[in-house]
Amino acid sequence: MAMSSVNPDLVRERQKCSFDVQELVHFIDGGEEHTLERREVENLVLDIKELKDVVPEEFLSHKERYENSIRKACILYEFFRKYSETNNTLDAFSPTNKYRVQMGVFKDISPFMLHMGMFVPTIMNQSAPDQAAEWLPKALNLEIIGTYAQTELGHGTFLRGLETTATYDPKTEEFVLNSPTLTAYKWWPGGLAHTANHCIVVAQLYTNGKCYGVHPFFVQIRDSETHMPLTGVKVGEIGPKLGFNTANNGFLGFNNFRIPRMNMLMKNAQVLKDGTYVKAKSDKLTYGTMVFVRVLIVTDMAYELSRASTIAVRYAAVRHQSQPKPGEPEPAIIEYVTQQHKLFIAIATSHAYRVTGNWLWNTYSKVTSDMGKGNLDQLPELHALACCLKAVCSRDATLRIEECRLACGGHGYMASSGLPIIQNIAAATITYEGEYTVLMLQTARYLVKAWKQASVGKVMTPTVAYLVDFSKNSNHIWENTPEGIIRGFHAVGAGKTQAAFEAVQAHEKTGLDFEDAWNRASVQLVNASEAHCRAILCEMSWAEMQRLSQTLSPNLRKVVLELIEMYIVFWALEKRGELLMYTKIQKDDIAVLQKRYEELLAAVRPNAVGLVDAFDIRDEILNSTLGAFDGRVYERLMEEALKSPLNAEPVNRSFHQYLKPLIKAKL
Amino acid sequence: MAMSSVNPDLVRERQKCSFDVQELVHFIDGGEEHTLERREVENLVLDIKELKDVVPEEFLSHKERYENSIRKACILYEFFRKYSETNNTLDAFSPTNKYRVQMGVFKDISPFMLHMGMFVPTIMNQSAPDQAAEWLPKALNLEIIGTYAQTELGHGTFLRGLETTATYDPKTEEFVLNSPTLTAYKWWPGGLAHTANHCIVVAQLYTNGKCYGVHPFFVQIRDSETHMPLTGVKVGEIGPKLGFNTANNGFLGFNNFRIPRMNMLMKNAQVLKDGTYVKAKSDKLTYGTMVFVRVLIVTDMAYELSRASTIAVRYAAVRHQSQPKPGEPEPAIIEYVTQQHKLFIAIATSHAYRVTGNWLWNTYSKVTSDMGKGNLDQLPELHALACCLKAVCSRDATLRIEECRLACGGHGYMASSGLPIIQNIAAATITYEGEYTVLMLQTARYLVKAWKQASVGKVMTPTVAYLVDFSKNSNHIWENTPEGIIRGFHAVGAGKTQAAFEAVQAHEKTGLDFEDAWNRASVQLVNASEAHCRAILCEMSWAEMQRLSQTLSPNLRKVVLELIEMYIVFWALEKRGELLMYTKIQKDDIAVLQKRYEELLAAVRPNAVGLVDAFDIRDEILNSTLGAFDGRVYERLMEEALKSPLNAEPVNRSFHQYLKPLIKAKL
Repeated sequence: MAMSSVNPDLVRERQKCSFDVQELVHFIDGGEEHTLERREVENLVLDIKELKDVVPEEFLSHKERYENSIRKACILYEFFRKYSETNNTLDAFSPTNKYRVQMGVFKDISPFMLHMGMFVPTIMNQSAPDQAAEWLPKALNLEIIGTYAQTELGHGTFLRGLETTATYDPKTEEFVLNSPTLTAYKWWPGGLAHTANHCIVVAQLYTNGKCYGVHPFFVQIRDSETHMPLTGVKVGEIGPKLGFNTANNGFLGFNNFRIPRMNMLMKNAQVLKDGTYVKAKSDKLTYGTMVFVRVLIVTDMAYELSRASTIAVRYAAVRHQSQPKPGEPEPAIIEYVTQQHKLFIAIATSHAYRVTGNWLWNTYSKVTSDMGKGNLDQLPELHALACCLKAVCSRDATLRIEECRLACGGHGYMASSGLPIIQNIAAATITYEGEYTVLMLQTARYLVKAWKQASVGKVMTPTVAYLVDFSKNSNHIWENTPEGIIRGFHAVGAGKTQAAFEAVQAHEKTGLDFEDAWNRASVQLVNASEAHCRAILCEMSWAEMQRLSQTLSPNLRKVVLELIEMYIVFWALEKRGELLMYTKIQKDDIAVLQKRYEELLAAVRPNAVGLVDAFDIRDEILNSTLGAFDGRVYERLMEEALKSPLNAEPVNRSFHQYLKPLIKAKL
Repeated sequence: MAMSSVNPDLVRERQKCSFDVQELVHFIDGGEEHTLERREVENLVLDIKELKDVVPEEFLSHKERYENSIRKACILYEFFRKYSETNNTLDAFSPTNKYRVQMGVFKDISPFMLHMGMFVPTIMNQSAPDQAAEWLPKALNLEIIGTYAQTELGHGTFLRGLETTATYDPKTEEFVLNSPTLTAYKWWPGGLAHTANHCIVVAQLYTNGKCYGVHPFFVQIRDSETHMPLTGVKVGEIGPKLGFNTANNGFLGFNNFRIPRMNMLMKNAQVLKDGTYVKAKSDKLTYGTMVFVRVLIVTDMAYELSRASTIAVRYAAVRHQSQPKPGEPEPAIIEYVTQQHKLFIAIATSHAYRVTGNWLWNTYSKVTSDMGKGNLDQLPELHALACCLKAVCSRDATLRIEECRLACGGHGYMASSGLPIIQNIAAATITYEGEYTVLMLQTARYLVKAWKQASVGKVMTPTVAYLVDFSKNSNHIWENTPEGIIRGFHAVGAGKTQAAFEAVQAHEKTGLDFEDAWNRASVQLVNASEAHCRAILCEMSWAEMQRLSQTLSPNLRKVVLELIEMYIVFWALEKRGELLMYTKIQKDDIAVLQKRYEELLAAVRPNAVGLVDAFDIRDEILNSTLGAFDGRVYERLMEEALKSPLNAEPVNRSFHQYLKPLIKAKL
């Protein structure tokens, strides 16, 4: 892009930057080769002319949005197909690169998302080899389009409560699928409404008169030629939502719908021809996919934070407001410390989540590789970790993104700012793949168990090892350093775990049974999980950034370490009350931390635009009038507004039909 | 409504209620006569068949939504007109009743909102008598439709930075309006785009070669007959937003557009025929409207909280999930204490805001009546009060509403739940009519000034009188009562004001001038304002509820006082860190408060559905599949989904056009 067309405020900001932006780009991508791959994908996809919308999505009707998104999805997948046939560097299309480039195409969620995100992986992970050999090539080639149907209208979190039934009929060697009630209807799967012709259906398996719990089935729901729903299948869409309005989320009900026996996914459990049920070797094996998606959400949130902060920081550098000093020009709003306080923590959090998320990913890979060798020991710890990290990161990221949106004032409320859809997509992650409170209480169960072990001095798994130390009532001196704060957060995690544990016990002593006592103490149990999770986030992001930044130039290393320090000090100040309760921190220490926080804001200030430039997000993926690389904020706001079909005519027809008769009635 | 059609869970909940729901309805409405008036309005308006949408708004295109909202707005205003001609009880149509009943009609914001909300009031408050005599009847009869155009593309908060000019030409006795730059375009006014034919334009007044700052002008922008924009006027719509998508927000630019001299609103300042500028008696007089709108936002937020909590509490009573105890049925999710923690505070906050908002309204009325007598003494205090209350209430309410939405799981993400639009409308109030941080810093200026006075023992205005006490370093004993907590919050407010004040001074000592020192300390200054505001909210809601509830039956009085106590204890726990820093509260006290909080949740539990029933919000105004009075949650979710135009056909045309070619390409 020619620098001459760039807003001069941004040119000046870029000149201030103390580090090499390209070096940070490569660091974020995990190496220069990954940057080049990512950019190749972006160049190939985002330059396809047919994928560019003439009228922005938000002007269309719900139906038109769907039709437009299918149009784009088909062009995109046709391109992927051709590319894979003619090109050997298919690696560039990693799932992450694909997901991100699609943000630039759909501005929301692709109607095919669950095909590649859940349908294909479930076939891979849960089919027997001959099943996979039959289904997988078709799915990968998009000869069949699928989705994953688990959640029902009346049942989400509690998997055992699902009502859809699959009853084995040994006479015909078929399963008969039924939705016995309205609440048994599948509800939510993306692409299910009018897009998929197949899906994985999770249903209660009945054979020989007995229920064996929920199992996955491979089910064709629409005719391959006509796309008509098959007889016995009722399918449609669930309606508009806060976001995901191009995802084509659907409902699905069955009435005595028959599928062959071999359509049950039989890698683990099986039903034999005569209806005999053969149990899976371990019921922990299905944990895998759930944990996988939760792990990815942590790095997805890092990415959404990078999008939101890029928009808000560039806008803050271009927007001028107020006149604190008479006679002087209005300063750019990035000069206001309150604005820096809102925005810089979003940049810092993105880095903290990325390095923690990558660490979690490596842990996940190690644990699943051990699982392959029959070692399931580390699974409970990984599960507890993924639960609280998914929950806390999705929630905090949504808050930070909203803060970025609010920091853009009224213009942040406009769809064309790009911030509302980022916020709404992030907000969905608080609920899907494990609701916030439910996940936090899962981690709390692990913590309480660990606390009991710690109090008798048992050896602990690494992430809760700190409990042993603090269960002995250790009284560490307070230190105003990242390490000191992390130690403080460990004390808070231990203190709150102990308090919640004792609250459960106290309720039990009043005669309540364990589950009722647990419920009564659950607000405190969630608090304990949160404290534990914040300790992990601070500890791991600090450790990982220390480790990863060793190869960086000294300039840049200083910058990225200061970002993680900012993240840690920010949370120390936010949680000062808990530190006061559980550590030896003093009022004066808090003043020291407040001062350090303000110093860190000042240190980031000249690098702010450089830092968001280093996220290296193309304008198409930002999709923002406020955040584009060139900073032509006001021009773009007006250009986007002029695309409104309402602006195509000076007078809307409703004037003649409604308004004029009203006005004239009185004359 | 026949009880037979009501979900049995809700029937049981209603039987549990310990108080007379109708008594609470009347209390909330401010007397039985107000309940009857409100219900009359609701019956009259919401039973008009033409105002009911066949296809819900969210399925329509942006343009269709506008056209549909204009259709409804015209039917509604025609009805209001006829009603006022034939009926003497026009009082029923108070602004509040009108605003609320319109929620049931538009589900979003009426395109006429700024006509009655800003255009008419500005004419009333800022015109000379002969101007008002000419314009007001036409505006009230909707012979002209107006809006209020102040904010510009490049200028919001900083009024003096507006760029639109009105230059007086004594030769023709006209003002010449111009938008000298793109950033000078008016941007945001509701109804401006295609609805209004007049507006109040705020512009920099130039006469005799000198700029006299911003003044309001009455400007016709569209032809009365054809509705075409007049020559020299460029007007259109700004595009889709997070909410307000039926509000028809517009942009407006002028090119040498001439209006008569007498179109300047001349109640205060004037321009004489020869161009002589006559100053207003006091420039504080224009404060009035700003403060007025901010005061109303506090009670508006109480209302939006009542809508959101009604939906979420009824849904929680109907939704069943998980099986804590093997073999027992899945409990309603309202039984989970974590759910009670999310929802009951929303009910409590609604009551706290309503009584505080009404107190603020009475204060406002008294101050404006004194202003009429030339006494402006109380204006700065009222201004400081309205700033922080508007800011904190809009922000907290939005968070509480989002919590209600998240508490409904995936279904809360659906537009048909009604929660997304409530959240998005509430979120807008954080920014409009005074952005959060800007307002908090306004209050901080007042606090810092008050602190200086307090430290030399000067007499203080009532709401900051506590500063005198604490500036003497009073060391009160801690008490775990509402009064004790309020006293504690006063200590926090004083402590944080002192800390922020000293931070400003410390920065000044390093050589910074006052405004730079202020900026450096601004994060702490905002914190001080927040602490002050929380003290006010707790103090006034407790005092007002004590006073107002005296006439209630003992049963109900207990219930409403417990709600305010819950509000106070909730915030004591949230702000435990600040209490630990600035009061003598001990760790054990916090455990006592935590226990008390859990007791209050248990006390509210059996009354939860009764409490939201007492908000007495009609199903049309809730507009929610999850929150309707009858609790037919799943039936309504499916009924609404089936209204989707996408569901009118089993196969969407995009299959034949795009999907089938993609699928078949590989076969």
